[in-house]
Amino acid sequence: MTQTQLTPATATATRTRTFSWSDPGLSSAQVGAMSGLEFLRAITAGDLPKPPISCMLGMGRIDAEAGEVVVHLEPEEYHYNPLGSMHGGVMATLLDTATGCAVHSTLPAGYGYTSIDLTTKFLRPVTVASGQLRCVGTVVSRGRRTALAEAKLTDAAGRLVAMATSSCLIFEIPR
Amino acid sequence: MTQTQLTPATATATRTRTFSWSDPGLSSAQVGAMSGLEFLRAITAGDLPKPPISCMLGMGRIDAEAGEVVVHLEPEEYHYNPLGSMHGGVMATLLDTATGCAVHSTLPAGYGYTSIDLTTKFLRPVTVASGQLRCVGTVVSRGRRTALAEAKLTDAAGRLVAMATSSCLIFEIPR
Amino acid sequence: MTQTQLTPATATATRTRTFSWSDPGLSSAQVGAMSGLEFLRAITAGDLPKPPISCMLGMGRIDAEAGEVVVHLEPEEYHYNPLGSMHGGVMATLLDTATGCAVHSTLPAGYGYTSIDLTTKFLRPVTVASGQLRCVGTVVSRGRRTALAEAKLTDAAGRLVAMATSSCLIFEIPR
Amino acid sequence: MTQTQLTPATATATRTRTFSWSDPGLSSAQVGAMSGLEFLRAITAGDLPKPPISCMLGMGRIDAEAGEVVVHLEPEEYHYNPLGSMHGGVMATLLDTATGCAVHSTLPAGYGYTSIDLTTKFLRPVTVASGQLRCVGTVVSRGRRTALAEAKLTDAAGRLVAMATSSCLIFEIPR
Repeated sequence: MTQTQLTPATATATRTRTFSWSDPGLSSAQVGAMSGLEFLRAITAGDLPKPPISCMLGMGRIDAEAGEVVVHLEPEEYHYNPLGSMHGGVMATLLDTATGCAVHSTLPAGYGYTSIDLTTKFLRPVTVASGQLRCVGTVVSRGRRTALAEAKLTDAAGRLVAMATSSCLIFEIPR
Repeated sequence: MTQTQLTPATATATRTRTFSWSDPGLSSAQVGAMSGLEFLRAITAGDLPKPPISCMLGMGRIDAEAGEVVVHLEPEEYHYNPLGSMHGGVMATLLDTATGCAVHSTLPAGYGYTSIDLTTKFLRPVTVASGQLRCVGTVVSRGRRTALAEAKLTDAAGRLVAMATSSCLIFEIPR
Repeated sequence: MTQTQLTPATATATRTRTFSWSDPGLSSAQVGAMSGLEFLRAITAGDLPKPPISCMLGMGRIDAEAGEVVVHLEPEEYHYNPLGSMHGGVMATLLDTATGCAVHSTLPAGYGYTSIDLTTKFLRPVTVASGQLRCVGTVVSRGRRTALAEAKLTDAAGRLVAMATSSCLIFEIPR
Repeated sequence: MTQTQLTPATATATRTRTFSWSDPGLSSAQVGAMSGLEFLRAITAGDLPKPPISCMLGMGRIDAEAGEVVVHLEPEEYHYNPLGSMHGGVMATLLDTATGCAVHSTLPAGYGYTSIDLTTKFLRPVTVASGQLRCVGTVVSRGRRTALAEAKLTDAAGRLVAMATSSCLIFEIPR
């Protein structure tokens, strides 16, 4: 449950937000116990807790298919840098989530992955006026030991605001 | 003022955090009115409000010299992905902050910048056991229209956990 | 005119190749005098000389549309690294050609561009057995001052062997 | 043996170059049979043939230490793009060589590597007037399964003209 409130107007115009999350150990304990797609869908279904990062940012639910994942985020003032727009790191977080989960969605039970890199291109500034962001991650290439995914981030008007590619390492989880 | 509390132990082990921030319009209105170094130091001194993104993540203060910027972050559970470690996007946010501010620190009054990209390499997982992270951004090349910066992120033991490069576009701010 | 010959079998199995090229000043003098698409098509038509790099590598002709460029290359032993496959730099050269020319193809007369970066992902080794490579570059985003292009490199069987993104700076050519 | 000659002045100002190389199978057969450093030094010593790519580009010798490799290249007109400067792909080839060989130089016998990516930043155009280029590759991080290397390319005046990072996958060579 998340709550944002504007404190009564003052010189410093302070805002306050409270957010909650659950022990991520509940989900991490299940990595490898089910397929990646089952894992992601268990989060969407609420059978596994929403990741803390999603609670912190106010991300919407994850929609996962095999090889493609979609996440949403409504831009908020608390995502801002000092220059008056969404911090590029918030966009990078969405893109990293989409690419990583897209790769995860292709993994059978018993396998895990780790991101080696994330190459983000910023194309257009984002503000609260951009409307809800949509981030679509897809797997471009899936090898035995590595996978390459890309993600595109669009604003409510469908304009591309950022994109990224990410290489992931795939490994068997030791039991 | 930030406050994290563990709610009484339950099956879902819910945690709650409240953070506050100020209107980023107070700082963005000053971009270009002073040099980049003056701008960054005004934030550190508290003469301009801390950026919302820093409040959300719990970042420490920024130490800026001309061409080099240092930021700190204590890893917290609310930075976590569902796999049980700090989300790569949080590292990317630190790295983007350090590279962007390093470029900003070289700009005279009347100039602004925008990041074109951020290429992040993830080298080692980060957890709360990693201790305080230190992120140092430096300007590698400073042209008239573009600048290239890099940043290194190390854990409390001094091990490199991630690094990034970022190209920035420099422009005169229209009055 | 290019000529590759296997010298008579010896212990060192030496091969020799001779290639020719024309003064690149003939083409560079025309940059900005015509649109990017006209420039690229003048090269394809033979009205401007083939670039030296294409002669050195043995690249095929460039097919340019507005925002999309296709180049071909037959893998040859002289493209090889010491590990026994095509050097990644040769793939990077094709990808850089395709992304750069795709951006160039969108420029009106009086404008030039320069590549800021090239992010290449290598997915599969290439050898002479891969057959003719096809590299398609497309413009992903075209702003006033910058453009983002991507390129995909496939082998004769249509498998993706490498891909890249490139950010370019666009500028008016001073007369 | 390499030979560049200006053909008698004509309207098309044609130049011709002949280069020779040896069967790369002679070196590739030795990958893994010796350590990476021994392999690179055998090439420098002439005990293994110079790689075809080096012959094509006219690269100088490779100087390898454990974790650091230096290569040189004299810019030539046949490295040019149609815009009148060295093609970015030639710089990428040097940078990929330096990063890859730097990683190779850390491998014991029985191990091989493959480059996953190469992220190149172009900072300054290169022409024949730039003088001899020097490219230094160093290993930034060396894990069990992956390594990260970076390389810097400078001109004869010591100015940084391009840099790159590359992630490599390390694997045991099956016997």
